[in-house]
Amino acid sequence: MILKAKIIPIRIGKDAVIMNQADADELGLLEGDRVRVIAKKSTIATVQIAMGLIEKGELGVCHEVAEECEIEEGSEVKIVPVPKPRSVEYIRKKLDGGKLTKDEIYTIVKDIVSNALTEVELTAFVLSSYIHGLDFDEIEWLTRAMIETGETLTFEEGIVVDKHSIGGVPGNKISLIIVPTVAAAGLLIPKTASRAITSASGTADTMEVLANVNLSVEEIKEITERVGGVIAWGGATNIAPADDRIIRVEYPLAIDPRPQLLASVMAKKGAIGAKNIVIDIPVGSPKVPNIETGRKLANDFVELGRRLGLNVTCALTYGGQPVGRAIGPALEAWEALKTMEEKRGARSLIEKALGIAGILFEMTGMTTNGYAYAEEIFKSGKTLEKFRQIVEAQGGDPNVKSDEIPIGDKTYDILAPIDGAVAVVNNQRIVKVARAAGAPKDKGAGVLLHKKGGQHVKAGEKLFTIYAEKEWKLDKAIEIAMREPPVIVSGMILEKYPSYRLV
Amino acid sequence: MILKAKIIPIRIGKDAVIMNQADADELGLLEGDRVRVIAKKSTIATVQIAMGLIEKGELGVCHEVAEECEIEEGSEVKIVPVPKPRSVEYIRKKLDGGKLTKDEIYTIVKDIVSNALTEVELTAFVLSSYIHGLDFDEIEWLTRAMIETGETLTFEEGIVVDKHSIGGVPGNKISLIIVPTVAAAGLLIPKTASRAITSASGTADTMEVLANVNLSVEEIKEITERVGGVIAWGGATNIAPADDRIIRVEYPLAIDPRPQLLASVMAKKGAIGAKNIVIDIPVGSPKVPNIETGRKLANDFVELGRRLGLNVTCALTYGGQPVGRAIGPALEAWEALKTMEEKRGARSLIEKALGIAGILFEMTGMTTNGYAYAEEIFKSGKTLEKFRQIVEAQGGDPNVKSDEIPIGDKTYDILAPIDGAVAVVNNQRIVKVARAAGAPKDKGAGVLLHKKGGQHVKAGEKLFTIYAEKEWKLDKAIEIAMREPPVIVSGMILEKYPSYRLV
Repeated sequence: MILKAKIIPIRIGKDAVIMNQADADELGLLEGDRVRVIAKKSTIATVQIAMGLIEKGELGVCHEVAEECEIEEGSEVKIVPVPKPRSVEYIRKKLDGGKLTKDEIYTIVKDIVSNALTEVELTAFVLSSYIHGLDFDEIEWLTRAMIETGETLTFEEGIVVDKHSIGGVPGNKISLIIVPTVAAAGLLIPKTASRAITSASGTADTMEVLANVNLSVEEIKEITERVGGVIAWGGATNIAPADDRIIRVEYPLAIDPRPQLLASVMAKKGAIGAKNIVIDIPVGSPKVPNIETGRKLANDFVELGRRLGLNVTCALTYGGQPVGRAIGPALEAWEALKTMEEKRGARSLIEKALGIAGILFEMTGMTTNGYAYAEEIFKSGKTLEKFRQIVEAQGGDPNVKSDEIPIGDKTYDILAPIDGAVAVVNNQRIVKVARAAGAPKDKGAGVLLHKKGGQHVKAGEKLFTIYAEKEWKLDKAIEIAMREPPVIVSGMILEKYPSYRLV
Repeated sequence: MILKAKIIPIRIGKDAVIMNQADADELGLLEGDRVRVIAKKSTIATVQIAMGLIEKGELGVCHEVAEECEIEEGSEVKIVPVPKPRSVEYIRKKLDGGKLTKDEIYTIVKDIVSNALTEVELTAFVLSSYIHGLDFDEIEWLTRAMIETGETLTFEEGIVVDKHSIGGVPGNKISLIIVPTVAAAGLLIPKTASRAITSASGTADTMEVLANVNLSVEEIKEITERVGGVIAWGGATNIAPADDRIIRVEYPLAIDPRPQLLASVMAKKGAIGAKNIVIDIPVGSPKVPNIETGRKLANDFVELGRRLGLNVTCALTYGGQPVGRAIGPALEAWEALKTMEEKRGARSLIEKALGIAGILFEMTGMTTNGYAYAEEIFKSGKTLEKFRQIVEAQGGDPNVKSDEIPIGDKTYDILAPIDGAVAVVNNQRIVKVARAAGAPKDKGAGVLLHKKGGQHVKAGEKLFTIYAEKEWKLDKAIEIAMREPPVIVSGMILEKYPSYRLV
C-alpha cells in the first residue's frame, strides 16, 4: 500500500507509524502489528491506529522512521505487513512455563536490542521469567547473549578485576575508594557504574561531581591501561544494551527478577573483560532482607561465574543503614574524598571499601591478608594519589579539595526531640528526603547524618541536615522528613492511634 | 513546573505528554511516570521522554490531552508528578501469586477503564492472571466489576435469553438463525456480537451485510422490546469496556487466559440482562482441542453463572471443520438467509442453530422437546419472517433476497487432484485463504466449500471456490491455497520427504 507521509515532529524512542483505521483494515492490520516501511531506505515499524488527524491515504511517520528511511513530508511511502518476529513464539513458550533453548534466548535478546519487540512482548518476556524463573542454563545463555549483542573490552596485558554492589543501601560511595586502592596496587579495574534510578545517587552521579563519566568504551580502555582504573557511566557505552531495555519494564512494576539481576550484573562485568569479581550484597535492604536470601544470591552469582569462566567472590555486607554519613551526589563525593585526604572517617565506609579491595587482592593471589594490604595502600596516601590521577584522566581537576566541592546552600537541621539512642536509620525514608531535596538531579542536594544507629543523643542535638539547591525543594524535603522521620530516637512515640473508650 | 505547550497533531489512543530529558530529570520523572496536566482543565497523563525536538521548557502534548485540557499551541501548562495508582500494588501482588480481594479487583478494573494503567502495567495484570490463574472468587469479582464499569440493560418485562459461541470455527453464522427463531417464540434476545479479530468474519461483520449493527444500548433495548431480537456489534456500545482493553494485550501474544475468557463472556451476557444463556463450545479448535477441555470449560461457565445468578447451559459442538459451507461476511449472510428462505441447507448449520435455540426453549420451560419446537418455527417460515423484521428494525432492507447479496466477482475454483474422499477441511487454513482474499474487510470475499469432510470427489471436481473483490487479493489467496491446501483429499501425498538410501 502506498501512502502519503505526514511527519510527526517528535522522537518517541521507537519506530512507529500511524495509520488511518480504514487503511489498516484494508491490510488487515491491528495496533501493534509490524510493517516494513519502504522509502529511499527501509525499516520495520510498529503500527499505531490514529484516532483522527491521519486521513485515509496518509501515513503518520515518527521522526525516527522519517530519518532512518529518508522520508520527506508529503512523499510517497510503501508499507507491507510483516510477520511477528520468531521470538514472540519463544516468549509464549516461556509464558507457558517451558524451558528456552540457547538459540531461542539469543533470538529474543537480539530482537530486544534491535527494538523489534513491542512493549507488550518485552513485558511478557520479563514477567514470564520473573514468575516461572529461568534455570541456570537459561541464565547463562541470557548473560552470554547480552554480552555478545553489545560492545566488549579486552585487555592484552594485566589482571582485570571488578566489583559490583547490589543496590538498596544509600550512601554506598565505596567504589570511589576501592577503584584507586586496587589500581594503586597494579590491578586493572575498568569500572562501569550506573546512575540513580530510584536512589539518591548512583556511583556515576557521585563521580560526575569530580570528573566526566560519559566515556566511550575506547576511552575506558585507554584510561584503564594508562592509570589502572576508571569510574565511568555504563549508560554512555553500548555494553550489554539489552539490559537497559529490560530495566525500563522492571522499573514501573518495581520488580527485579532474579535471573535478570544475575544476567545483568555478570554481563556487564564479563563484557569489560574482568576475570576476578567481587559482588557486594548488602543484607537488610528490601532486595536482600536477610542473610539466607543473601547466601542464596551469593551462590547463584558464584555458579553463574563458574559457568562463564569468571572467578566470583560475594561479600555479604551490613545494609541496615546508610554507608558512611553522606547521601546525595556532591555530599558523597565530598565524604569519599575527605576520607581519602584525612585517611580516616566513617568506619562503615572505610571498613567496607578496604574489605572489598582486600578480597580482590586475595583473589588475585597478591596477598593472603587483603584487608591489611588495602589498608596499607590507603594509609600511605597511594589511594588518594591514584584517585587524583583517575580524576585527571577523566577530565576533572586533580587538585580538587573535598571542602571545595559545592554543596547545596539551603540547609535545615533536624533535631532530636528527646534524649535517647538512635534506634533506626530508615534507608528508604532517607532516600525519599534526599530525593525530595533534589538529589540526584541537583548534585548539591542530599542528607548528612550526624547520628547513626546505636549512638546516644540529647534532646535538641542535630540528627541530620538536609541540603538543597532550591528553597522549594528544601521545604518539600523538610515536610517529608517531618511526616515520615528517617531517624528514630528510641523513646519517641512512633505513631499515635485514637484512644478508645468504653460505651 | 510550567512548560510551553507544543501540540502533537495526532491522536495516539492514550493520554501522553512528551518532555525534554532535562525537565524530566528536574522533576525526577522517568518514562512511564504519571503527571497531572493543568491548563484550563486538568487530566492525568503518562510521561514520554523526547529524544529530540522537544526543547527544555517545552511540553509535547498529544491531541487527546490538548482537547481534554483545552490547551492551545504555545500556551502555558503546569505539570505536577502524581503517584502510581494503587492498582499497581495489587497487580504486583498477583504477579507474586497472591489472591486479590474484591476491592482490589474492582480498583484494577476501574483503572483499566479510566485508562490509568500504562501498557506495561496492564500487560502485567493480564499475564499474571494467565500464569497464576484467578480462582472463582476472583473471576466472579472480575466479571461483576466489568459489568458495573460499563453500560447495562434491564428489561421490565419478558424473558431475556442469550447465546455465545467460543470462537475458533469458521462459518459459524448460527446466530442469524438462532436469534429470529428464539424471538419468534416470544423470548427476548438482545444479542451483542463481535467483529472478526483473527477470523474471516464475526457475527457482527456478517449481519452488517444486511443491516446496521452500530447500535447504542438504547437502540438495542428499543428494538428488542419491539421485535424480540437484535444482532448488534458490541463494540459500538460501552458494555464491559474493560474487556476491549484486555483483549488489546492478549491479541499480540495470542493468549486467551481462561479467567479473562470466562469473565469476558459472562460480563457481556450479564450486562444486557440475560438470565438464561447457552454457551456454544466447539470442540476440535485450538482453543478447545478435545472433549475433556470442553467439559472443564463448560463446568467453569456453569459455576460462574451460578455465582452471578444466571442460568447457564453449555453445548459442546463439533468444531473439526467449518459450520455450513460459506466463510466470509457476505457469503455467510447469503448462506444463512438462503437456508431460512428455502427451509433447508447444510445440515451442520441447521442442526446446530436449531439445537441451540432448542436448548433455550427447554431452559425457559417453554417445552420439553426444544429441537422439535425450534424446527417447527423454522419450517413454518416464522424464523425468516422474524429475521426480516429484525433486519428492518436495524435499518436494513426487509425484502432482501439471498441471491441479491453482492458477492465478490473475482473467483477461482480449486479442484480435486485425484479421486478420493475429503479427509480434512482445515479450519485455520480456510481462514487464512479467506482473509488473504480480503475477508472480513472486503465483505464479498471468502471461501465457499463444495465438499466437506467425508464426501467423495472425483479428480477435477470443485473442492471450493475463492471469492474476492480485488484481483491482487484473489491472486494472494490462490497462492496460499496452493501452498497450504485447506481441503485434503485422501490418497493425496500430504508431504514428500527426501527419500533415503542405504550407503
